[in-house]
Amino acid sequence: MPRYRLLIEYDGTGYVGWQSQAKGPTVQQAIETALTRLTRAVVPIQAAGRTDAGVHATGQVAHCDLPMDWTNDRLCAALNAYLRGHRIAIVRADQVPDSFQARFSAIRRHYVYVILNRRAPPTLERNHVWHVRAPLALAPMQEAASQLLGYHDFTTFRATECQAKSPMRTLERLEIVPRGDCLDVHVASRSFLHHQVRSIVGTLVPVGMGRWSVADVRAALEARDRTRCGPVAPPDGLCLTGVDYEEVAVSEDCARHP
Amino acid sequence: MPRYRLLIEYDGTGYVGWQSQAKGPTVQQAIETALTRLTRAVVPIQAAGRTDAGVHATGQVAHCDLPMDWTNDRLCAALNAYLRGHRIAIVRADQVPDSFQARFSAIRRHYVYVILNRRAPPTLERNHVWHVRAPLALAPMQEAASQLLGYHDFTTFRATECQAKSPMRTLERLEIVPRGDCLDVHVASRSFLHHQVRSIVGTLVPVGMGRWSVADVRAALEARDRTRCGPVAPPDGLCLTGVDYEEVAVSEDCARHP
Repeated sequence: MPRYRLLIEYDGTGYVGWQSQAKGPTVQQAIETALTRLTRAVVPIQAAGRTDAGVHATGQVAHCDLPMDWTNDRLCAALNAYLRGHRIAIVRADQVPDSFQARFSAIRRHYVYVILNRRAPPTLERNHVWHVRAPLALAPMQEAASQLLGYHDFTTFRATECQAKSPMRTLERLEIVPRGDCLDVHVASRSFLHHQVRSIVGTLVPVGMGRWSVADVRAALEARDRTRCGPVAPPDGLCLTGVDYEEVAVSEDCARHP
Repeated sequence: MPRYRLLIEYDGTGYVGWQSQAKGPTVQQAIETALTRLTRAVVPIQAAGRTDAGVHATGQVAHCDLPMDWTNDRLCAALNAYLRGHRIAIVRADQVPDSFQARFSAIRRHYVYVILNRRAPPTLERNHVWHVRAPLALAPMQEAASQLLGYHDFTTFRATECQAKSPMRTLERLEIVPRGDCLDVHVASRSFLHHQVRSIVGTLVPVGMGRWSVADVRAALEARDRTRCGPVAPPDGLCLTGVDYEEVAVSEDCARHP
């Protein structure tokens, strides 16, 4: 059974997230259904990032084992044909060694969270940004972000239902880059806790509004107390833009937010 | 009657274009309806660019005369409230001298046409890009573009129903910039002929595919013959990103594709 790595892009609006569940349509179900129609077999897939409801991806990576050989391009084209009607695309497919695991072989995940910071509502970017009307001051947000960089106990910044054994994570990048009316928050880490990025962004925004100080963010981190977190940012602005692996940065050539 | 200049952004999907007509919903109608609800008067508006059905804008400019004074911010907020449900936003409103005319005072229009050049279909950018599956070679497209720069008779590149008196135009910018899987075609001119940008893009793409040579494009331009144009590119990829005026580049601070 040859193993394939899929590079996947989707608009998460209207899906209850990546992972299959009873509550509604998921990205995983849509792709597994396409794989079943293609192969007439049950083909489970596993992804690097289990994105939440409404969260998007330009660089999701998953793997699956197929009952027969396909050329990479034909597999990709066939899956996209079966996914018609979904806002999900297989950007590329590559046959990989059996040792490759999309989730466990990943050494780094990249997310971008987009804040639209203006009075007027979003139009072209609707569902793809968090609309924050109050003007945000960049410098204090950047200073607060620098407090969260590196190895910390992120208990304050993870959902109470988070199932990770340890709350310790190393935030390798947390950078806020202005782009027109938007602030792009670039985040990278080996792995993330549940709601970690949205919790961090939801805590940086009150800093930009002047409601929280940089010291408040530092104190919230050090408290290791979920109740000290800012309001969790909505899913709309979040996008999984890439996943790195030891041998190859699979998504590098197609990440939308470099 | 104070005059106001509006900076307008919209997702053109689902509208039959900017200009009011009997065939379906237009952006102009939506904004004029909002103005009527706000002022209880009939308030006509005139825009710098009469975009076609399905064409978007991040930097459209229009002007109107209101029966009473409004502060700029309150006018903007009130219009956006009445536009709820539309994918149209008033990004800013400014009271301007009566001599200002959105259309006739404009000295330059900026458009960006986005081509998604990959096998996989668009997801997040659906309706906002032209999906071209065949790989495009950038260098010949750029060389062909350079043939069209400057002052020319653009008869080949305008719709047969174009009502402009003269087919002479000066293309001030025609630049193709790669961005991830996309090619952004940046175009600027004092004014454009009907379908001019889409005709130009639709002629550059066959060059990128190797079907047309640079000399073919040159010959098509010199033929001054509409039947020599390439296929007109679809509206989805086109966006009016800004309009310049003598005193001030109104949209500079909010253009999405700088």
